[in-house]
Amino acid sequence: MRRFVIGQAKNLIDHTRRLHHHKSLLSLAASDSAPVLSSSRLFSSSSDMSGSDSSSSSLPVTLDSINPKVLKCEYAVRGEIVNIAQRLQEDLTINKDAYSFDEIIYCNIGNPHSLGQQPITFFREVLALCSHTALLDESATHGLFSSDSIERAWKILDQIPGKATGAYSHSQGIKGLRDAIAAGIEARDGFPADPNDIFMTDGATPGVHLMMQLLISSEKDGILCPIPQYPLYSASIALLGGSLVPYYLDEASGWGLEISELKKQLEEARSKGISVRAMAVINPGNPTGQVLAEENQREIVDFCKREGLVLLADEVYQENVYVPDKKFHSFKKVARSMGYGEKDICLVSFQSISKGYYGECGKRGGYMEVTGFTSDVREQIYKLASVNLCSNTSGQILASLVMSPPKPGDDSYDLYVAEKEGILSSLAKRAKTLEEALNKLEGVTCNRAEGAMYVFPCINLPQKAIAAAEAAKTAPDAFYCKRLLHATGIVVVPGSGFRQVPGTWHFRCTILPQEDKIPAIVNRLTEFHKSFMDEFRN
Amino acid sequence: MRRFVIGQAKNLIDHTRRLHHHKSLLSLAASDSAPVLSSSRLFSSSSDMSGSDSSSSSLPVTLDSINPKVLKCEYAVRGEIVNIAQRLQEDLTINKDAYSFDEIIYCNIGNPHSLGQQPITFFREVLALCSHTALLDESATHGLFSSDSIERAWKILDQIPGKATGAYSHSQGIKGLRDAIAAGIEARDGFPADPNDIFMTDGATPGVHLMMQLLISSEKDGILCPIPQYPLYSASIALLGGSLVPYYLDEASGWGLEISELKKQLEEARSKGISVRAMAVINPGNPTGQVLAEENQREIVDFCKREGLVLLADEVYQENVYVPDKKFHSFKKVARSMGYGEKDICLVSFQSISKGYYGECGKRGGYMEVTGFTSDVREQIYKLASVNLCSNTSGQILASLVMSPPKPGDDSYDLYVAEKEGILSSLAKRAKTLEEALNKLEGVTCNRAEGAMYVFPCINLPQKAIAAAEAAKTAPDAFYCKRLLHATGIVVVPGSGFRQVPGTWHFRCTILPQEDKIPAIVNRLTEFHKSFMDEFRN
Repeated sequence: MRRFVIGQAKNLIDHTRRLHHHKSLLSLAASDSAPVLSSSRLFSSSSDMSGSDSSSSSLPVTLDSINPKVLKCEYAVRGEIVNIAQRLQEDLTINKDAYSFDEIIYCNIGNPHSLGQQPITFFREVLALCSHTALLDESATHGLFSSDSIERAWKILDQIPGKATGAYSHSQGIKGLRDAIAAGIEARDGFPADPNDIFMTDGATPGVHLMMQLLISSEKDGILCPIPQYPLYSASIALLGGSLVPYYLDEASGWGLEISELKKQLEEARSKGISVRAMAVINPGNPTGQVLAEENQREIVDFCKREGLVLLADEVYQENVYVPDKKFHSFKKVARSMGYGEKDICLVSFQSISKGYYGECGKRGGYMEVTGFTSDVREQIYKLASVNLCSNTSGQILASLVMSPPKPGDDSYDLYVAEKEGILSSLAKRAKTLEEALNKLEGVTCNRAEGAMYVFPCINLPQKAIAAAEAAKTAPDAFYCKRLLHATGIVVVPGSGFRQVPGTWHFRCTILPQEDKIPAIVNRLTEFHKSFMDEFRN
Repeated sequence: MRRFVIGQAKNLIDHTRRLHHHKSLLSLAASDSAPVLSSSRLFSSSSDMSGSDSSSSSLPVTLDSINPKVLKCEYAVRGEIVNIAQRLQEDLTINKDAYSFDEIIYCNIGNPHSLGQQPITFFREVLALCSHTALLDESATHGLFSSDSIERAWKILDQIPGKATGAYSHSQGIKGLRDAIAAGIEARDGFPADPNDIFMTDGATPGVHLMMQLLISSEKDGILCPIPQYPLYSASIALLGGSLVPYYLDEASGWGLEISELKKQLEEARSKGISVRAMAVINPGNPTGQVLAEENQREIVDFCKREGLVLLADEVYQENVYVPDKKFHSFKKVARSMGYGEKDICLVSFQSISKGYYGECGKRGGYMEVTGFTSDVREQIYKLASVNLCSNTSGQILASLVMSPPKPGDDSYDLYVAEKEGILSSLAKRAKTLEEALNKLEGVTCNRAEGAMYVFPCINLPQKAIAAAEAAKTAPDAFYCKRLLHATGIVVVPGSGFRQVPGTWHFRCTILPQEDKIPAIVNRLTEFHKSFMDEFRN
């Protein structure tokens, strides 16, 4: 286990060598001068120390002496395949002729702006004005910015003591911005939200880590997680030494979430002496793209209440719903509409500025709405937030804007609506096109991407491909994805990185490349898949 | 232990009640209508659940069921006294007449902009242009921004794929920005720095957490930390379940760091079966303000090399040196000048945009320079960074600017130098004034603030005050600091929050209030201290 990265690197070198000598593989021209990746180039390092010399080194830190929980942690979304892609990208600039493609297309991660999506103008105008407040005193500014962005910037600055966006804020975030977020939640749900329940975070990730840190003491503490899951959950649980208690989503019914499965897994975990503390739900689903029906959400709320579980609701894709027959409902709205209040259920909702139509991943903003905890436990959550001082104020400002965008009549409103609708309708089209294209491939079935930013097709790999993957000491879907990358430059993440029903194979591909690129991606994917099947068909 | 927060809250209520009925206490007018803080108002919460009802609640999370490491963690810089201050501040707006002061002055934390320090214009210009890139296409922009800020913004954007500041970056940070940082380190040290050794972080805090997470598996792993220390270290070690191995700085010799003390503590820890993994050094010191002599740094490097310790160098105050006889030397420069390279010593240097003359705390930027680790351990550090995706790009941009500010001849240069020198020379004056004022107080001795942002005086408290504190179930220095807060509105942090030689008492006070406020602060402090001593003198 401890040497798995080195093992992976070695597999990769072997695999790359094979690829470069496999004349039949699509049009990836192999030649003796073709670039062969060396293991030392796989990871950036200034030193001339290769991994294998660590045992002979006199340095005090070795893989054997570091925290074993770190070794156990995996994060496929930025794992091996992305490292290969980054090196290929570097090589592409030097050895252009060695490749049949001219760019690497990163479909491994929900990172819209990296694939050409433009930011919402209003959001960035406000951010610029809050970044350099002297602009607000210049008359020329009125010619460069919308009037409501200027107004909003003033409003935000007035809410910050001394207008100092460069100061640490309250540990939970700037109070006035939390007021705006709470108002946005109320408008969305039709139920009250309290700004004091909002903890602003650098994206959803630190919020999830914080709640896991609160709940997990040892391997005796379990967290129910969907399988397939976004690997932040497995990584965070591994780092804290807890137990991931899986519940499998039913692919055949469009990644359905069955209460009977939850009960079964909960009982099984309890029979092993695991105290299950919380249930994580990702809605809309990542990597699976399903949107939960409200009735299903009610069942989940009742299950958590009955079983004494904290409901961790990952709702970062709340704006990403693409089908007319589904609608996003927050778990808080569902719980409140069932008559459950603060004293009935512990519920944490995570939101992020990285997703939705805004896609501001690099700005690292988000919040969690924490409800149903006693005040003494709340104090502990507050203390954990305080140790990190505060989330970044640019992200805080964007989080408030996302939850309180321009309103009808505002100077920016028409542009805002056009930008938002343009992005969301295009994403819906791209999801549909990719889903349909994937379903046409031999041995591939792909559920509807009802929401989120991904398709997650099942690939029925031929036995010969599985054997070849085994020989290469790699998971079959990772084998497929690496082949795809080397043949087409398209980066997707193997299903094994998200966990899946044993013996099934998937990959996750974002729907984020710009619309004009989708046909070429479909063609390359289709062509590759045919060639792969031709090579490995039983 | 678990109920300590509640206990503290109750002590506070008692204390506040006492304060409000103690007619002799300075001019803090007590009346029956004076505000009495209730424990439920101490922490923000929407619920009507007080801490004491957790045992009767049916909710699944109680203090007894959360991670005990969280309960053990303490973070005084944003702890009890700040909560009291925030409530006092709220009350001040309503019950103005009940107080002898008209504002709360937060000297508890190094947060310069919150106390009126202005951001460096060039930094904010570049940030605004990178936040709203459409500005770069407008001719009016040239009238509003310096020419080098426009050039720099273009340069930065050209280094970001697709100019997308809204995209997740490389897990270590945007490569071009790391190039600028590495160049800045080289210029500072005169030794090479590699951009691939730079891991950009949301302030220094997440970097410290990451390294602790790598090194600590259990209470058998120890980290040598200075005492007094910045409580991030004790908090991080507590959260990971490791052992803080203290080494005491010698107050009598200006917070000297003696190798004999290091050896003694190391041996004592080892005799208890603790494997000491690393040594944390804060230079310039926090809360102690000393600047290490180069010769002392050499001894520390040799000690770490000899004993097989990772040297964790907290160098966030590297720009904050106020005395002509001291100079900042990075530990990497010192190690390299001794002839020690990558293979000789594991060294991590932490830098932050929150400190220095820039003080951009709210933007959460920083980096760690990681040298001397084998590539397989480096991969694990990279993986940990990847789980959090990346640090925020606004912070990344500022970190690059801090390490590559305007140069002579640049349009912004003169203004930049004036702003920087103005801030640093004023900080030096403020440090001197506060140090001198404190040394004039009965029973108070204060070492020179050679660097950083704090004075850390020793207060020789009368036995009667210690007894009164004991009766109030609070540490004597916390008792003093709370009295100070209620009498003057000045917020400082008790020395017990940083740990100290048992039986000695201190507080940490930032030197950050604007220069024109310092005389009033000195007066209020002096007046309070006299009154306190009059009340408690033996």
